[in-house]
Amino acid sequence: MEGLNIPDNNLERIVIIGCGFGGLNLAKKLNHKVYQVVMIDKHNYHTFQPLLYQVATAGLEPDSIAYPIRNIFRKLPNFYFRLAEAQKIDAEKKILHCNIGSLSYDHLIIATGSETNYFGMEQVEKWSMPMKTVPEALNLRSLMLQNFEAASLSQDLQERERLMNFAIVGAGPTGTELAGALAELKTHVLPNDYPDLDFRRMSIHLIEMADKVLPPMQEFSSRNALQYLESLGVQVWLNTAVESYDGSVVKTNKKDIPASTLIWAAGVKGNIIAGLEEGKDYERGRYLVNTFNQIGEHQNIYAIGDVASMQAKDTPKGHPMLAQVAIQQGLNLAKNLNSRKNPSNWKAFRYKDKGTMATVGRNKAVAELYNKLMLKGFPGWAVWMAVHLLSLVGFRNRVVVFFNWLVNYFSYDRKIRLIIRPWHRSTK
Amino acid sequence: MEGLNIPDNNLERIVIIGCGFGGLNLAKKLNHKVYQVVMIDKHNYHTFQPLLYQVATAGLEPDSIAYPIRNIFRKLPNFYFRLAEAQKIDAEKKILHCNIGSLSYDHLIIATGSETNYFGMEQVEKWSMPMKTVPEALNLRSLMLQNFEAASLSQDLQERERLMNFAIVGAGPTGTELAGALAELKTHVLPNDYPDLDFRRMSIHLIEMADKVLPPMQEFSSRNALQYLESLGVQVWLNTAVESYDGSVVKTNKKDIPASTLIWAAGVKGNIIAGLEEGKDYERGRYLVNTFNQIGEHQNIYAIGDVASMQAKDTPKGHPMLAQVAIQQGLNLAKNLNSRKNPSNWKAFRYKDKGTMATVGRNKAVAELYNKLMLKGFPGWAVWMAVHLLSLVGFRNRVVVFFNWLVNYFSYDRKIRLIIRPWHRSTK
Repeated sequence: MEGLNIPDNNLERIVIIGCGFGGLNLAKKLNHKVYQVVMIDKHNYHTFQPLLYQVATAGLEPDSIAYPIRNIFRKLPNFYFRLAEAQKIDAEKKILHCNIGSLSYDHLIIATGSETNYFGMEQVEKWSMPMKTVPEALNLRSLMLQNFEAASLSQDLQERERLMNFAIVGAGPTGTELAGALAELKTHVLPNDYPDLDFRRMSIHLIEMADKVLPPMQEFSSRNALQYLESLGVQVWLNTAVESYDGSVVKTNKKDIPASTLIWAAGVKGNIIAGLEEGKDYERGRYLVNTFNQIGEHQNIYAIGDVASMQAKDTPKGHPMLAQVAIQQGLNLAKNLNSRKNPSNWKAFRYKDKGTMATVGRNKAVAELYNKLMLKGFPGWAVWMAVHLLSLVGFRNRVVVFFNWLVNYFSYDRKIRLIIRPWHRSTK
Repeated sequence: MEGLNIPDNNLERIVIIGCGFGGLNLAKKLNHKVYQVVMIDKHNYHTFQPLLYQVATAGLEPDSIAYPIRNIFRKLPNFYFRLAEAQKIDAEKKILHCNIGSLSYDHLIIATGSETNYFGMEQVEKWSMPMKTVPEALNLRSLMLQNFEAASLSQDLQERERLMNFAIVGAGPTGTELAGALAELKTHVLPNDYPDLDFRRMSIHLIEMADKVLPPMQEFSSRNALQYLESLGVQVWLNTAVESYDGSVVKTNKKDIPASTLIWAAGVKGNIIAGLEEGKDYERGRYLVNTFNQIGEHQNIYAIGDVASMQAKDTPKGHPMLAQVAIQQGLNLAKNLNSRKNPSNWKAFRYKDKGTMATVGRNKAVAELYNKLMLKGFPGWAVWMAVHLLSLVGFRNRVVVFFNWLVNYFSYDRKIRLIIRPWHRSTK
């Protein structure tokens, strides 16, 4: 078993795949005197995904919403990080095969999160922009700015309009927040940068199959968010499904929309690793886990977070794919593993819904707290900011994000409009 | 003349190529009621090059030392920015050809700065890392971290050592500052991140052809900088010339040094644009200009900064390639152009040497101010920081850099250790 170069120190070995919200909280909480913990991730940093849309819209630098994994765990004994991609699980031999070698495990925790789901639409996948990782958010920032540079050069009015138009598919929190941020760029920032362009011609389209925005949230939130979006000039298309996209025109079941940029925020699927059995161990891109997050009959293989589906009476389709679920499952599983000598002490997972929220623009947000308190406007926005600030990893990151928000708030500006590496579709 | 889509508004048109220190200050100072100013740059941001080495060594985020060009000039009338690469000058027809089209000019100012000079050593160029742009600094940061990840995997001690070794060629300010920053990473940061590596095996080599470090500075500075470098554990090789590099061993006239990373800071040459006459208009990579920065007989073509060589009695080889020279030439040329109706008012350029400085590490810097005041230690370091902070463009950038310096100073840490886009030599 060569390749990962991890010493065998006679402790039981827990291998965690993925340092998202679930894997991060699990690894922190484990008893590192009892276990050897190996964390594998294909990035060397934890990404705070809820703020990726602000990186894409020039409001935050990527470095302030990401945090080096080795730094998080630097003081823990018996902890090993490896920059690697998990490729296949051999459940019988208890071995995980990675791109840089293989590794035996006593417990394997799959916390690989989710990736963009195009539902098999190849043309859409080829031409649209996802926004699930830092490089993807940077690509989107580059493309947006490159399009405005190109629009400045074009004398063909139709082409110019296409370059200035944005279509966002999916009005969940990501799509809604991104549409709002683009609308604020249109109002406050871009016209100063491109005085020779007519910004009445720039339009932002938010396309949603359901009959409301923020479908998983309550009526109060959906209604207010829609109102905010419309007050910012976003064109919202409900009950509308995208049929195809060729890089210049979005075809839907209702209307054709010319747009050089389509951002796909319409669906995710779990990141399944080869090796377990489809239908039995996982289905529709999520591992089927019991209330201890164990997968099927594999007592020592667990899945947590987006990639896990815990189907019970109140969650027939599993829990929603939210950071809170991943965090709570990670913490619960860590506690269970820490008391492994008394399996009778293991606690079944129970999700505590602390609430959901989405921000559309300055002083414009909706928040549902503990299914009771409904906020909107400035109070909702203040709560949204506080919760996101406190959830960031690292003191430096919190201060830099807070300072950027202050500057953005008072200057109505977004300063980080840099095309650091031009993005070309051909490199996708 | 299609392509750049710039309206003809009957003002004389000044085209500036490059928004470095020279072009930036020139464009700001010009009378925008009298001239139409077109700025061309291949990046959409101004780079504060003196701090690139801190981006490469994880101390600063790239976004805080770069500033969007459109933002700098957003309030100026008759100003146009185009993201383009200048390709050829047609001096007779007064046309500049770019990758996106052509543009006529009344006055053309070449402020293209300098690029890394490998003096024709192709193998060195192929395998070494330059550090003149933001993407190059990010590539270096990625490669450094990727090498430590790879060293963690290797069981071959020689390979491991090679991966942990750094060679820097050129002990000017860039090479000296980078060597010091790497030494501090080695002492304070990396051992926490990679507890399974033996950091006594990591070495940093600074190779210089001259007989002292910081060759253009005075003996006092060179001597103290050398002492600082050695106290930080940097191995300084003076009177030493690199002969070849194959990606794993640096061959010099004295010694072979195994190192997977070689950073080339040993020379620059001006960025010449095709079209003018070699030998007459430019030689050895710099345009030959008179004291008004006019090139040869072309009264309406000017060069400023690194790419200009103003050969006079006290500067037989032209001025040193420093930010201060570029800034002062830009400002002087702007003043001259603003009083163009009275060419007799034009002032010949005279360089005011405000001083030079270099920082090696915390509380370790040397500074020569106005050729009189010599500083070292904490005072030198404080002056270095103040001068660099005040020279940054943008309030946000100054605050973010200052805050990062505070955090780095008190935590002895460098937090921005992210491999955002892995770097592969094959993509070079």
